Amino acid sequence: MSKRVKEILSWYSSDSPGTLANIARLLNHGRLGGTGKLVILPVDQGFEHGPARSFAKNPSGYDPRYHFELAIAAGCNAYAAPLGFLEAGAAEFAGDIPLILKLNNSDSLYGGNDPCPAVTGSVDDALRLGASAIGFTIYPASAARETMYAQIRALSEEAKRKGLAVVVWSYPRGSGISKKGETAVDVVAYAAQIAAQLGAHLIKVKPPTEHIEQDAARKVYESEKIPVATLADRIRHVVQSAFNGRRIVIFSGGEAKGREDVLNEIRGIAEGGGFGSIVGRNSFQRAKADGVALLHDIMDIYSNT
Amino acid sequence: MSKRVKEILSWYSSDSPGTLANIARLLNHGRLGGTGKLVILPVDQGFEHGPARSFAKNPSGYDPRYHFELAIAAGCNAYAAPLGFLEAGAAEFAGDIPLILKLNNSDSLYGGNDPCPAVTGSVDDALRLGASAIGFTIYPASAARETMYAQIRALSEEAKRKGLAVVVWSYPRGSGISKKGETAVDVVAYAAQIAAQLGAHLIKVKPPTEHIEQDAARKVYESEKIPVATLADRIRHVVQSAFNGRRIVIFSGGEAKGREDVLNEIRGIAEGGGFGSIVGRNSFQRAKADGVALLHDIMDIYSNT
Amino acid sequence: MSKRVKEILSWYSSDSPGTLANIARLLNHGRLGGTGKLVILPVDQGFEHGPARSFAKNPSGYDPRYHFELAIAAGCNAYAAPLGFLEAGAAEFAGDIPLILKLNNSDSLYGGNDPCPAVTGSVDDALRLGASAIGFTIYPASAARETMYAQIRALSEEAKRKGLAVVVWSYPRGSGISKKGETAVDVVAYAAQIAAQLGAHLIKVKPPTEHIEQDAARKVYESEKIPVATLADRIRHVVQSAFNGRRIVIFSGGEAKGREDVLNEIRGIAEGGGFGSIVGRNSFQRAKADGVALLHDIMDIYSNT
Amino acid sequence: MSKRVKEILSWYSSDSPGTLANIARLLNHGRLGGTGKLVILPVDQGFEHGPARSFAKNPSGYDPRYHFELAIAAGCNAYAAPLGFLEAGAAEFAGDIPLILKLNNSDSLYGGNDPCPAVTGSVDDALRLGASAIGFTIYPASAARETMYAQIRALSEEAKRKGLAVVVWSYPRGSGISKKGETAVDVVAYAAQIAAQLGAHLIKVKPPTEHIEQDAARKVYESEKIPVATLADRIRHVVQSAFNGRRIVIFSGGEAKGREDVLNEIRGIAEGGGFGSIVGRNSFQRAKADGVALLHDIMDIYSNT
Amino acid sequence: MSKRVKEILSWYSSDSPGTLANIARLLNHGRLGGTGKLVILPVDQGFEHGPARSFAKNPSGYDPRYHFELAIAAGCNAYAAPLGFLEAGAAEFAGDIPLILKLNNSDSLYGGNDPCPAVTGSVDDALRLGASAIGFTIYPASAARETMYAQIRALSEEAKRKGLAVVVWSYPRGSGISKKGETAVDVVAYAAQIAAQLGAHLIKVKPPTEHIEQDAARKVYESEKIPVATLADRIRHVVQSAFNGRRIVIFSGGEAKGREDVLNEIRGIAEGGGFGSIVGRNSFQRAKADGVALLHDIMDIYSNT
Repeated sequence: MSKRVKEILSWYSSDSPGTLANIARLLNHGRLGGTGKLVILPVDQGFEHGPARSFAKNPSGYDPRYHFELAIAAGCNAYAAPLGFLEAGAAEFAGDIPLILKLNNSDSLYGGNDPCPAVTGSVDDALRLGASAIGFTIYPASAARETMYAQIRALSEEAKRKGLAVVVWSYPRGSGISKKGETAVDVVAYAAQIAAQLGAHLIKVKPPTEHIEQDAARKVYESEKIPVATLADRIRHVVQSAFNGRRIVIFSGGEAKGREDVLNEIRGIAEGGGFGSIVGRNSFQRAKADGVALLHDIMDIYSNT
Repeated sequence: MSKRVKEILSWYSSDSPGTLANIARLLNHGRLGGTGKLVILPVDQGFEHGPARSFAKNPSGYDPRYHFELAIAAGCNAYAAPLGFLEAGAAEFAGDIPLILKLNNSDSLYGGNDPCPAVTGSVDDALRLGASAIGFTIYPASAARETMYAQIRALSEEAKRKGLAVVVWSYPRGSGISKKGETAVDVVAYAAQIAAQLGAHLIKVKPPTEHIEQDAARKVYESEKIPVATLADRIRHVVQSAFNGRRIVIFSGGEAKGREDVLNEIRGIAEGGGFGSIVGRNSFQRAKADGVALLHDIMDIYSNT
Repeated sequence: MSKRVKEILSWYSSDSPGTLANIARLLNHGRLGGTGKLVILPVDQGFEHGPARSFAKNPSGYDPRYHFELAIAAGCNAYAAPLGFLEAGAAEFAGDIPLILKLNNSDSLYGGNDPCPAVTGSVDDALRLGASAIGFTIYPASAARETMYAQIRALSEEAKRKGLAVVVWSYPRGSGISKKGETAVDVVAYAAQIAAQLGAHLIKVKPPTEHIEQDAARKVYESEKIPVATLADRIRHVVQSAFNGRRIVIFSGGEAKGREDVLNEIRGIAEGGGFGSIVGRNSFQRAKADGVALLHDIMDIYSNT
Repeated sequence: MSKRVKEILSWYSSDSPGTLANIARLLNHGRLGGTGKLVILPVDQGFEHGPARSFAKNPSGYDPRYHFELAIAAGCNAYAAPLGFLEAGAAEFAGDIPLILKLNNSDSLYGGNDPCPAVTGSVDDALRLGASAIGFTIYPASAARETMYAQIRALSEEAKRKGLAVVVWSYPRGSGISKKGETAVDVVAYAAQIAAQLGAHLIKVKPPTEHIEQDAARKVYESEKIPVATLADRIRHVVQSAFNGRRIVIFSGGEAKGREDVLNEIRGIAEGGGFGSIVGRNSFQRAKADGVALLHDIMDIYSNT
Repeated sequence: MSKRVKEILSWYSSDSPGTLANIARLLNHGRLGGTGKLVILPVDQGFEHGPARSFAKNPSGYDPRYHFELAIAAGCNAYAAPLGFLEAGAAEFAGDIPLILKLNNSDSLYGGNDPCPAVTGSVDDALRLGASAIGFTIYPASAARETMYAQIRALSEEAKRKGLAVVVWSYPRGSGISKKGETAVDVVAYAAQIAAQLGAHLIKVKPPTEHIEQDAARKVYESEKIPVATLADRIRHVVQSAFNGRRIVIFSGGEAKGREDVLNEIRGIAEGGGFGSIVGRNSFQRAKADGVALLHDIMDIYSNT
């Protein structure tokens, strides 16, 4: 057990040894094992965006086993997916890689400004499938946010009692903010804080832009001269916003984009002290060798920072 | 146990032997037993559309025993119905044919764009009646979809713990999509994916049309040149969308229609790699001999593909 | 045990001996005992319409014992009432007459188009009071119908496990249909089917009118030439709609009316193969001797058919 | 479904359709399927007598998969074994043969005259493993018999509620009777009666000898001139003692012995109206081909009677 | 994941992915990770024999952290201990080594020939402490064996449902056998079989002697010429007795003894196909460096076989 991992675990001293062991499992697995950094493969896009939009570009991805294989080949710290995808491979790949069972999901067949995902799995499912953590998405700024907060509260309490870790995807979205505001630096920092206050062990947010959404916040950013000019600045601020860096904050990559764009973003995240990335479409929508190569490059950035 | 059935069972390696045995039971019964193909008789129309609309054409169908007899005479893999219909024959026909207890149902006495069926049976009812599986309908695109997803999540977890199989009818419908969109190829493929991610063992969808409903999807179908011109093309795409063919996907026949229309549709489904059909009105609204003959012709198409 | 009662019991072969014994108890008690016909006294109007509207005409009816006495004096098959009325006489008349505990009730102090009665008793109450059956009202066509279906699902499962019979009052009402549609022949037949599919042993509906409410149904009634001209025709159709006559369907008398009107209606029900009547206001709002005499006349019509 | 199986099922009319379906499953599987006769492979000797005594003669039997294969190859109606043996093959052979999970077992490392096996599995284990029935051994004549009766009462109630069948091994043994008395005709008949009264669907007893153990019984056997001279006589009497033949009674083969001895005994059982045999050591302690051949010969005797 | 580990996992196909992942965790950790062999450090002697007898020789062992450190330093596959010892280090060493929570323990302050340990922990304790498995001791041949079998039945069912592995210490002891019989080859083989039939994933027994305890068994060992002359012969027989080698069987080292005696015994176990050793007193009663060195030598023997 590396010093850094020991240090990170010390931040979670209220948690049971079972939960600590599962956090350690996430931190110690794969090519970044022991560095305190994580790169996680998440594949919920089949549910969230539909199969063709998710997998047509690299049709291997229609097969649930592909994503286990990709995460293992790339040496990711963990693989996160909804119930069906995990059930379709958890026995075959048992023990090969830490799993995160995503317990809520939204599809895109019904619009609406104020998303509230359905709960699609349970903590007992996570135990049955051998997952190290549950995953849960909250949408602060949605009119339905309180439903989600209440759900994660109950699920998180149960998960902690049963020795699992809790990963919260905190994505502000809904009628409370503008589209641009979803990635505003004040909003992303706030989202990280909410997830931390809800008791998340790992927090996933989006890389923040320079935009500031809320007037009340803007005044403070200006008066206190909080630096938000570079991505590294903003990441630093978001990590600080999650208990002064005493919670693991990782960043999503978002839509598929060019290789260099991805890597530049990662450099900013790493420089700003981000704990790592969740890389979905940018990995599984590439040919396998390319996806693995890109994930390795991302990991190299983190391990060299 | 045929090689093909063994292969299909291998896709469900996270499930208990009890659930595997019940999936095997569905696959091994009747004239298609062992081929990996299924033709199932579903009769929920009395509840869903009302008795006269369902049974007046062939009044034998008012009697619940008729449908057991029809399914047995035709050599179907299973018979699926709501609680009352199964209770009215499950003892008399115990052991004659695998049963699927449909656990939710909607009637047509109340309209509304966003259906949410009532839960009308339990997993323990399924055990008591000797059913091999529970059936459940979800309506993605309904404003109430999250309620349904949450219900099937809980029922499915319980059914799996008790050794039953889970069959999900996935019918997009509601204010999220257009009427035409209900059978759009992108929407049907998405519906199959959602059911698979929710943990269904068998998935029932409608045969898809060439229409594409969602703009975001259309771009991908065009850029990736996903073939959707023929029914077989579209079926192939839908089956691929259900975990690359590693979930059993069967297709409904829809409204009663002419014999040749039915058989042509089946030929397309079979050619595209569909696992079979659920044939309700097209079988029980015909005279018994005709219904059986049509079901046999349908089975012959599947067994010769 | 008469042949006819044996035959009727054979329709419920999925049920436990306890439930069968309670159905037999209902069928074998009173002046119609053994004929397969039933006349039941229901008194829930105090709750549903208020005391004065219900009992002022014949003030004896304010006393809960009166209705036990009336039902016993008339030789009814059973007496059905809400919790309070049964508690007020169940000990005194223990063993005198089969009881049906009505488990949900609505009052008239709050309006609204879409009724959803409150659950006002339990299966354990029914056991404690020595009832042979639970009673439950559903309002198909109400926006709240799914709540009621879910409630009766759970209560019915429990009642069956504990050896009781289940009586469902199926009264379409609510914003899904017109006022006239509440007794339309298509709607009443549909209501009988829904109750049967929900697993009811006895089903109570209203005598249907010639009106047809739903367009989709009208086409079938016309094309299949379903006879609905006489009350007997319509009753026959409703009984057929309840599993081809393999569920006990009885009819309510509705509002108080003239003696001959009542008897004429009964003649139509009997001729059409109805299993009997529930006669409330037309019996207890008359002087006792008159009420008993009318009930006897009604029973005579059934026993002579 | 054959007439004979239908007739047998009619004896269990208090049971749920689920239980009936599982009894049907046992009766309809294998080479004797549909005849109303059963040959079952039971392998609990590893637990009861130890591995070397059970399997050294034919070391293939050390492997749990061997017994599944033997039962399938021989076309037995079912395979019965303790938890560990079923867990070691239930997934691989899911759906291949009905299973009976033996829920209690004794080992031979502790002596004592009054055996009381430990409960080593649960009804939920049976569901999880896809078993059609639970099996349970009672030792009437043991000082601990009431413990066993209480255990099977509770397990049987649960099994019936969950749609399983109940098989009781009824082996009088203990300080209440002599060693010779364990197979005395009065005692075996009594054991069959006890199992039937405890609610067993299938009853397994030992072939009775001519010996009569109890004085009180002897008087009746003599005064009523109950024929017990031939094995067929005695089998007839035992079957009569299990509700006049309205419960399925099968007979154990006991210790390994010569082929002709086995077959002669079967002829007596078949002639006396026994429903079949449980054949353990005489099948799995032979080479596989020999075991299968013997089982086939046994089945032929039953199917030709 | 090595081929051998994959092969071993395939023996447990009835288990959930969670349980498989925990078995994999035990097999993949430490210096023997991936070889299919295990060396486990068990420290329950403080409870079983008292502190001075256990720890005075090497007083570091009084400190619960010492045993974590020893197991980690030596690269053991797992560390097994009762509740208190695990609670005293599970947080500090979270994620460092797989843990096995021993759920029952006996102290030596009360004598008696027929031991029955107290249950001193729960499955939920195991989850809370992050253990990969529960451990449980049974004493076949004790008059109280049935109590222990019933306890492990219930604990094992719960552990499997919650995704844990089950390790059974099977130590025949009690008034049913002689002192010498406790390690007799027939008895040890029988003990392994009993644990396997009870559903254990890993089985721990003592190295067997040439003595044969039971007369009925002796006949078979002689007639079937089962080789038991060398330790390797006997180990081979014991492993065969645990489902023909399809269950993981490991051997205890017993009392502290000389280094060469220990290693010679290990050579015999390894040669006979044993899956590994549990080494307690022989490791923690030595100075740490010696203990580690001995454990490494033991591991080397296993990895070179």
